[in-house]
Amino acid sequence: MAAIDPSSAAFLLAENRSMPMHVGALQLYEKPEGAGPDFVRGMVEQMRDVPEIAPLFRKHPFRSPRTGGALVWRDDTQFDIEHHMRHAALPAPGRIRELLELCGRLHQTRLDWSRPLWEATIIEGLEDGRVAMYAKMHHGLVDGISAMRLLQKTLSTDPDQRDMPAPWSAEFARSRRGGKAVEAPDRGLSELPGEVVRSALGITAEAAGMPSALVRTLTRGVRNQTSTLSLHAPRTMFNQEITGARRFAADDWPIERLKAIGKATGTSLNDVVLAMCAGAIREYLIEHDALPEEPLIAMVPIGLKARDVGSASAEGGNAVGSVMARLATNVADPGERLAAIHASMADGKQALASMTPAQIIAMSAIGQVPAVLPPLLKMQGIVKAPYNLIISNVPGPQQPHYWNGAKLVGNYPASIPINGMALNITCTSYDGMLCFGLTGCRRTVPQLQRLLTHLEDAVVGLEEAAGV
Amino acid sequence: MAAIDPSSAAFLLAENRSMPMHVGALQLYEKPEGAGPDFVRGMVEQMRDVPEIAPLFRKHPFRSPRTGGALVWRDDTQFDIEHHMRHAALPAPGRIRELLELCGRLHQTRLDWSRPLWEATIIEGLEDGRVAMYAKMHHGLVDGISAMRLLQKTLSTDPDQRDMPAPWSAEFARSRRGGKAVEAPDRGLSELPGEVVRSALGITAEAAGMPSALVRTLTRGVRNQTSTLSLHAPRTMFNQEITGARRFAADDWPIERLKAIGKATGTSLNDVVLAMCAGAIREYLIEHDALPEEPLIAMVPIGLKARDVGSASAEGGNAVGSVMARLATNVADPGERLAAIHASMADGKQALASMTPAQIIAMSAIGQVPAVLPPLLKMQGIVKAPYNLIISNVPGPQQPHYWNGAKLVGNYPASIPINGMALNITCTSYDGMLCFGLTGCRRTVPQLQRLLTHLEDAVVGLEEAAGV
Repeated sequence: MAAIDPSSAAFLLAENRSMPMHVGALQLYEKPEGAGPDFVRGMVEQMRDVPEIAPLFRKHPFRSPRTGGALVWRDDTQFDIEHHMRHAALPAPGRIRELLELCGRLHQTRLDWSRPLWEATIIEGLEDGRVAMYAKMHHGLVDGISAMRLLQKTLSTDPDQRDMPAPWSAEFARSRRGGKAVEAPDRGLSELPGEVVRSALGITAEAAGMPSALVRTLTRGVRNQTSTLSLHAPRTMFNQEITGARRFAADDWPIERLKAIGKATGTSLNDVVLAMCAGAIREYLIEHDALPEEPLIAMVPIGLKARDVGSASAEGGNAVGSVMARLATNVADPGERLAAIHASMADGKQALASMTPAQIIAMSAIGQVPAVLPPLLKMQGIVKAPYNLIISNVPGPQQPHYWNGAKLVGNYPASIPINGMALNITCTSYDGMLCFGLTGCRRTVPQLQRLLTHLEDAVVGLEEAAGV
Repeated sequence: MAAIDPSSAAFLLAENRSMPMHVGALQLYEKPEGAGPDFVRGMVEQMRDVPEIAPLFRKHPFRSPRTGGALVWRDDTQFDIEHHMRHAALPAPGRIRELLELCGRLHQTRLDWSRPLWEATIIEGLEDGRVAMYAKMHHGLVDGISAMRLLQKTLSTDPDQRDMPAPWSAEFARSRRGGKAVEAPDRGLSELPGEVVRSALGITAEAAGMPSALVRTLTRGVRNQTSTLSLHAPRTMFNQEITGARRFAADDWPIERLKAIGKATGTSLNDVVLAMCAGAIREYLIEHDALPEEPLIAMVPIGLKARDVGSASAEGGNAVGSVMARLATNVADPGERLAAIHASMADGKQALASMTPAQIIAMSAIGQVPAVLPPLLKMQGIVKAPYNLIISNVPGPQQPHYWNGAKLVGNYPASIPINGMALNITCTSYDGMLCFGLTGCRRTVPQLQRLLTHLEDAVVGLEEAAGV
């Protein structure tokens, strides 16, 4: 048995029926040429046939009178790989629609605490012959960025490589640890000096750790109108209590197409991504007759390294700071909207640059511990969160990657909607594409998949405005 | 919020990672002639599109300081039919093997207590074009026999009937209640006068109700060697601690074939079923070099009505008594084995006939509350259960039944392995077939599916012995 660190415990304790606290990813693969009818079964068997499972994938939370009522990690002595590594198929006709329906259902089901907190499902039956993998892992074990990196690390840029490791094999975990020391270990937060994080977050040894310093920073921000946080987010249909029902939508766009818009307008890729989201959300809210007069605010996690090098995008590292971006959803013209977003991001980044490292790290907990934020704000008398949704852009590899010769052709993150924040948009770049994963409460955000159409329309609108 | 009756609470509280406490059923359907490619989707949609869900399917267990720590039923105010009613498909090649693998996985997953305790999955992709439904429901809501009857009641003997109700629709529940008063309501036990059951089981209002009278009866039985219970069960590989991994196997045999054996040997259908199981278990244990010298003992639930009318089979009502049957697994000759089983059952039934109704009802709890039995016995200093496994034979309808024109062609029960009782065999009759469902712990009972082959071999052996 091992103690659970306070931020992991916070994610575990924040979980309830309406808010499962796991992150997920949907990956699409193209079978290698000449793959036989047993290719997928072989893939499943190879991922199951792991001589030793890494400790991260064997431990589960446990609480009893013997542990003094405290949550601890315990090794699963009855570990059963068949429970965690699954083989499924899509109902006919096997379109992306059926795939996203299945992913929504898999993403809404809570992980069983009496077993290690992860599952992976290899899915066949796509009409185009591709193979999908949906994987989920509790945020108490790993944050979303680290989870996606973990999956990437098992892949190879060599299409001819075979005998690839499963992400949960102990051998693979050892090889990663023996390799580059800078690689993320189990969780993103642990890349930061532990003492700094703990003291900045005001985390004590008590379970459900109270990031009081974070709240102080945030409270000061909201009350004193410092520029990073001096924003008023209108209440929208996204900012309600949520249920445990989930919908997941995913699609991708060529990065070149988005970069061309940025180049023509003097804005960054990240600005264009935000403008796409803003345009899509505006259309969606108009459709639902629910567009507020004031612009929506997005919390945009930003990498520390990006700030250090003055980069205009979020690329360069795990997100450990964040900017509040005005999405200009009240502006009808796509070009003007993009310009307004660009200005808002520039403001925010300047404010970020003037913060102390401890403040920035404290703010990072907004991204790292989203679930505990609203109740904490409520306790401080702040009834509204200062933003409407989180839009993350997580950098990924630009070369094609392969798993035993199967080419990864899409990689879409699934995130965690929380009470008051029913929609989450996370993008990741991969091999010339920007892959969007939209995760929402199915009840609070009906017809979530419509946002995919609106995203494409928004790109077209921006292209027209930019004259490209 | 409503109080949970003690026997339901016992099932809920007995549940843990190694012992999920739900019963299940696998049904196979043939599509009606002329069914289009959207037939299965339509089936799913019709089962989802239920204007009002019956209370039994809306309630979930809940415990908090506000309930004084007691378990209560609470209506799920966020009820989400898409969580409970699922649409899945089999991986290629879609054989029965893939179907049973999926059912094993679905059967081993615990139901989430924060939601109502049932799930149903319609499964397409069988290579022969048939459609399957696997449904599971917590034993705290309904016992296995009542669950199967509930599913049956939604079906029709008329192949042309359409607009069939979903088992969970409130309309259907009302129509059942308004119909024949003798129909089983939510649970089997409630068919018996409540006072009799409660006093016979010694159940108090405390959660986890202690069936002390049952234990007294059983202890007396074991110690005083009264004939119903005066049996010594050898320890076998089935009688170990189990894990949460499950395997499910299912197949059916023509009843005429089994009855011909009974007719030629002067034994009952139930005797032949037990002899089939005995023969299969003997072969399985020989294969694993684990056949004990002494014969295995099966606990065979028996219907009260069957006893009343002196019937030789278990047909005629819910099982509320039980007989301990010597399976004669030490006898190599199939004919001699059948004769020994017949004699053992006759002994047992005679003993049953001499018991008081209260004793019989108390014994029923062995079947109704299997999970609480071993710990109770242990508390009484009885370290071994007096039997090795439970073999139930639940009567079902003999005419073909249909769901919206789709013909039910197979109906297989999935039951609850418990610690010390790793294998369960339940059969049910349907339309001229005897359908067997074998549920076991995948670790403790490896290669469970081999038992299907052994069952067929046992039938052939009995046929040869009987000269039919």
